[in-house]
Amino acid sequence: MAGNTFGKLFKLTTFGESHGVAIGGIIDGCPAGIPLDFEAIQQDMRRRKPGQSKIVTQRKEADEVEFYSGIFEGVTTGTPIGFVIHNTNQKSKDYSHIKDVYRPSHADYTYDKKYGVRDYRGGGRSSARETACRVVAGAIAKQMLGEIKINAFTSAVGTIQLNTPYQDLDFSKIESNVIRCPDTDLAEQMITRINEVKKQGDTVGGVITCVIQNVPAGLGEPVFDKLHAELGKAMLSINAVKGFEYGSGFEGSKMLGSAHNDKFNADGTTQTNLSGGVQGGISNGMDIYFNVAFKPVATTLQKQNTINSEGKTVEMQGKGRHDPCVVPRAVPIVEAMAALVIADYQLLRRQESKTW
Amino acid sequence: MAGNTFGKLFKLTTFGESHGVAIGGIIDGCPAGIPLDFEAIQQDMRRRKPGQSKIVTQRKEADEVEFYSGIFEGVTTGTPIGFVIHNTNQKSKDYSHIKDVYRPSHADYTYDKKYGVRDYRGGGRSSARETACRVVAGAIAKQMLGEIKINAFTSAVGTIQLNTPYQDLDFSKIESNVIRCPDTDLAEQMITRINEVKKQGDTVGGVITCVIQNVPAGLGEPVFDKLHAELGKAMLSINAVKGFEYGSGFEGSKMLGSAHNDKFNADGTTQTNLSGGVQGGISNGMDIYFNVAFKPVATTLQKQNTINSEGKTVEMQGKGRHDPCVVPRAVPIVEAMAALVIADYQLLRRQESKTW
Amino acid sequence: MAGNTFGKLFKLTTFGESHGVAIGGIIDGCPAGIPLDFEAIQQDMRRRKPGQSKIVTQRKEADEVEFYSGIFEGVTTGTPIGFVIHNTNQKSKDYSHIKDVYRPSHADYTYDKKYGVRDYRGGGRSSARETACRVVAGAIAKQMLGEIKINAFTSAVGTIQLNTPYQDLDFSKIESNVIRCPDTDLAEQMITRINEVKKQGDTVGGVITCVIQNVPAGLGEPVFDKLHAELGKAMLSINAVKGFEYGSGFEGSKMLGSAHNDKFNADGTTQTNLSGGVQGGISNGMDIYFNVAFKPVATTLQKQNTINSEGKTVEMQGKGRHDPCVVPRAVPIVEAMAALVIADYQLLRRQESKTW
Amino acid sequence: MAGNTFGKLFKLTTFGESHGVAIGGIIDGCPAGIPLDFEAIQQDMRRRKPGQSKIVTQRKEADEVEFYSGIFEGVTTGTPIGFVIHNTNQKSKDYSHIKDVYRPSHADYTYDKKYGVRDYRGGGRSSARETACRVVAGAIAKQMLGEIKINAFTSAVGTIQLNTPYQDLDFSKIESNVIRCPDTDLAEQMITRINEVKKQGDTVGGVITCVIQNVPAGLGEPVFDKLHAELGKAMLSINAVKGFEYGSGFEGSKMLGSAHNDKFNADGTTQTNLSGGVQGGISNGMDIYFNVAFKPVATTLQKQNTINSEGKTVEMQGKGRHDPCVVPRAVPIVEAMAALVIADYQLLRRQESKTW
Repeated sequence: MAGNTFGKLFKLTTFGESHGVAIGGIIDGCPAGIPLDFEAIQQDMRRRKPGQSKIVTQRKEADEVEFYSGIFEGVTTGTPIGFVIHNTNQKSKDYSHIKDVYRPSHADYTYDKKYGVRDYRGGGRSSARETACRVVAGAIAKQMLGEIKINAFTSAVGTIQLNTPYQDLDFSKIESNVIRCPDTDLAEQMITRINEVKKQGDTVGGVITCVIQNVPAGLGEPVFDKLHAELGKAMLSINAVKGFEYGSGFEGSKMLGSAHNDKFNADGTTQTNLSGGVQGGISNGMDIYFNVAFKPVATTLQKQNTINSEGKTVEMQGKGRHDPCVVPRAVPIVEAMAALVIADYQLLRRQESKTW
Repeated sequence: MAGNTFGKLFKLTTFGESHGVAIGGIIDGCPAGIPLDFEAIQQDMRRRKPGQSKIVTQRKEADEVEFYSGIFEGVTTGTPIGFVIHNTNQKSKDYSHIKDVYRPSHADYTYDKKYGVRDYRGGGRSSARETACRVVAGAIAKQMLGEIKINAFTSAVGTIQLNTPYQDLDFSKIESNVIRCPDTDLAEQMITRINEVKKQGDTVGGVITCVIQNVPAGLGEPVFDKLHAELGKAMLSINAVKGFEYGSGFEGSKMLGSAHNDKFNADGTTQTNLSGGVQGGISNGMDIYFNVAFKPVATTLQKQNTINSEGKTVEMQGKGRHDPCVVPRAVPIVEAMAALVIADYQLLRRQESKTW
Repeated sequence: MAGNTFGKLFKLTTFGESHGVAIGGIIDGCPAGIPLDFEAIQQDMRRRKPGQSKIVTQRKEADEVEFYSGIFEGVTTGTPIGFVIHNTNQKSKDYSHIKDVYRPSHADYTYDKKYGVRDYRGGGRSSARETACRVVAGAIAKQMLGEIKINAFTSAVGTIQLNTPYQDLDFSKIESNVIRCPDTDLAEQMITRINEVKKQGDTVGGVITCVIQNVPAGLGEPVFDKLHAELGKAMLSINAVKGFEYGSGFEGSKMLGSAHNDKFNADGTTQTNLSGGVQGGISNGMDIYFNVAFKPVATTLQKQNTINSEGKTVEMQGKGRHDPCVVPRAVPIVEAMAALVIADYQLLRRQESKTW
Repeated sequence: MAGNTFGKLFKLTTFGESHGVAIGGIIDGCPAGIPLDFEAIQQDMRRRKPGQSKIVTQRKEADEVEFYSGIFEGVTTGTPIGFVIHNTNQKSKDYSHIKDVYRPSHADYTYDKKYGVRDYRGGGRSSARETACRVVAGAIAKQMLGEIKINAFTSAVGTIQLNTPYQDLDFSKIESNVIRCPDTDLAEQMITRINEVKKQGDTVGGVITCVIQNVPAGLGEPVFDKLHAELGKAMLSINAVKGFEYGSGFEGSKMLGSAHNDKFNADGTTQTNLSGGVQGGISNGMDIYFNVAFKPVATTLQKQNTINSEGKTVEMQGKGRHDPCVVPRAVPIVEAMAALVIADYQLLRRQESKTW
């Protein structure tokens, strides 16, 4: 109820604040018998990690995952997987100057209104640091997906947009540049743009596109838990996300039915895929693809006025270790959440697949 | 798990197929002691009903709700509210010609892949007829909301878009025209466009905007069940929806942080509201607003080729009683789903509001 | 949350009051493709029905189930099964004399305290009439169980106890007498006892034993949702139940470990079965058996003093159509709840059974 | 689904195996603003701890709880409370001799059947070590209960039974002896009995009684989640529990209704309390009391034959550090589970308590 659990059969519950002792989580419902590739988990952690390149925050966090349970001799046992990531960057510095300050477009004000108690050391629970736990769980979920492949990439930074259809992109190029855009020329422009913005002490938003391939037909649950509705919720639960669209998305709303319908081939595949791989909330076997919009990071290095908890105006200025653009580090988070959704629906599918 | 329940404390479970005996649902968790305004419920039903105007399907459904439990002498008793809407239009006609046909961009194919059994009389469970039950529950949820007001309206039909900020609109005009657009001039253009499309036997998509006002600060649950994430899931679960964005949405991803941040006033309100009334998944007391994109209805009156369950090509053509544009009838559905989300978070909020 | 749903993957939600228009429910998560035996459902309904014999209430209820959805051409479709049982005995009689009266050891007082609103026409939601819906769902769940057999029977009426080990009983005799005890001699004594008690205008408690056979090893979920814990909750949720024990039960607490341990045979079966077919919350392949204690029905025909909502003493006397002993009609309810639990864990088991 | 979460609004999820790195859990839904008494938590931990007296296992575990999140400056923040207890007794000893052995009346066999993978170092997840996490959460839940008091005590060891009504007992004596029986004479007999049994290398069962006082009327949820049903499930989920009864329990099933009914006083209290403080699943303001039956510990020090995973007979003998009777250490576990249930229903009650 309190919102810290995701999933139905493959369930992740997370805990932890940005400046507490540790963050971590419990994965409950991971099937037994999966030999885990720990390097793959750590690799996804590195893709999310601060300090990985010049265009992300230079904050230092070891981000090493310790597994406490649910794994024996490298193989999942079916019991809950407890894991912890210690906060190595948790300095005992003086936060008293920001103790009562509500940073604009942050969650300081709303947490205070909701809970009446506030961990004022950084963002606390509302910090995107929590997403490290999602990446751990997502990296494990990916190892259950068999042939299903999930690729996310940066498709826009501010107004610089990738317009190539994803079918014409080479996903193997995604990790070849620090912005994670498979079009390497455009990637250069995006990086340049972020550096400009950073120099101004400003931040910029962006869009991540995600493509899920080799999904079997039949995943999803009507009517409220439609596959795309759960994907949408998963993405909207990521910090800074403002929008989600799949298949034809918002553009599709401008079209005529005669143009929008995906004609069938004899084998049940379709000639076009404006549906985005889902019909009636259930996968149809075509690629699932969607866009996720991220707002610009709220912490800028420019001076701004804001209020404190007594309603008094105070001047504030962000410190130098924030992300000028959240998108490159969010790519593995989008993949992780997609993996959690697909793994979950795969398990739901398995329990219904027998013919009676 | 099977996806027919929505909500945490205020829970709606629905049942029913488009051509079965009846559809209906159970509302579990509705607090005791609410005197129900049945006319308000029926009024929302009329807003969703087929045959309400020339620009919607002319199919006939009485859509009269029978309440079987949970209400005594007009007041909710705290026990589950069971309700049923009989399908009066359930003809014993011959469906054998479409029995094995998969209609393009419908859920026929995916339901067949998932379940292996198919109720081939119309859309069955995947039909938007199910949303009548959401409107019933939403109309009850609205009666729990006190000062909170929910207004949805049509903001685009195809490429005809309403660009006026919602603050400058007169919501009392929404119901003054059949397309439910508060800009009456634009409404005329939209209606004309739908009539053109209808004449061509085609269909067209659109966008609905929803504004929730007078929301107290503090509603929402971090981290996975963020208020906007649940709203997004709720909207994406409505038939034909392809996208959801709130506050600055996809446009916000193009902006700089310095321009995007909402500056605080001394009272905690903000000077702008690009956040869309939510920070960190929790309401901040400002208006919540969002857009929902609907694809064009898949059933057109034009002839098209498709396949049957044996993979053979068959020619098909829709009958004359389908909606040329789903948007006008979807307005009360969007409101209903918003009401369910807000009522639910309101109850969650109440259990935590005491100071210990 | 509000407690009207049972199950995880095979979920039953019920609605309805004893004197409302109808009771009913939704089964969500029933797999597709099960050809339903409707006569078997109605047969279980008859076993629970009032008026079935001289030793139960002579109240008249048709108890005919109408299915509204989820079944097509006699086969489940995987969509929610909505069903309704109309209350034919719902007379418009005058209840004003009991409107404010709290009957002793009934739920009148607690419902009033909880909800502040009370449907005073009979027990309302707290009436055992609700269990008719459980029998419908349980009868469907039974049809998913394959080789698994569930047999419940009366093992005590007041102080008359069946002490024969269940292995020595002939379950085919259970339905041969109206008290549902497989020992026909003891059944006679029980019936005689009930008739005596009835003549005195009194009521008497009893015990039902349930045996589940042919359960495969591996059903159940540690640590909180242990198979026997869920069975216990299921039984304790039945009206009038005061206790649950499985395997050696309360007697087992008096034993020494050396005598209590079940020694293994080479094939993994055990020589004794004090465990009751469950170890660590997971079935071990041996028979599951348990006892359920029912209190005497609270409504007697003797005059008694009680209070009304203003705390004033009032005299009351039950009417002539109540059960002198709840046990014979509760046998199919115990079976139904057991079937719901087993069907649910069977589905949970299926999603985890693949080797990765 | 996988059973490692307990509760609806106040939710505990646990992880950890007896011989893994650590056990721990996440409490999600704990309200903000509760100043925690850490000494009270540690005190309950000491009551459950091995080595606390001569009649329990002499195994050594520090059982020190580390809190990682959800608490700031000693006060709960409303965010999830993550906690960890490191397994200090986790020796790298050689378990290969028991690797494939199924201990009688343990969960070795069933876990192997269910998961196909087995952590053979001790009981793994099925070990009662997991209950340490329940004690942590229960100790926090207790701090939310205000006037409500929970007292559990040993009421039987083998055939030595405490027959005094709980009203005549002095609960302040419970902790005055190592068996935790408020009747100090009987406590001596129980201790003597355990020492005899221990000397024989055997084990013995027992019963714990729990009394919850000052419960307000109105807690509980009909119909499936009745307060006593949830208490029953909570107790049955504790390792080694075989039975649960509340109020008159199994004895009540032998009574007549005229004797069993609790007559009301003018203030709504009752003259007797055979109901055990609950009517129709909702608390009535009287004391809630119940009995929990524990089987004798399966690990004895006597030699016994058993089988291994290949079905071959092997001889085995327990080591010297097991509990001869589980009951004294289970007293705080029973209290903890009761506290979790009551705290949860208290939160559920709060969300419904407003008059509309």
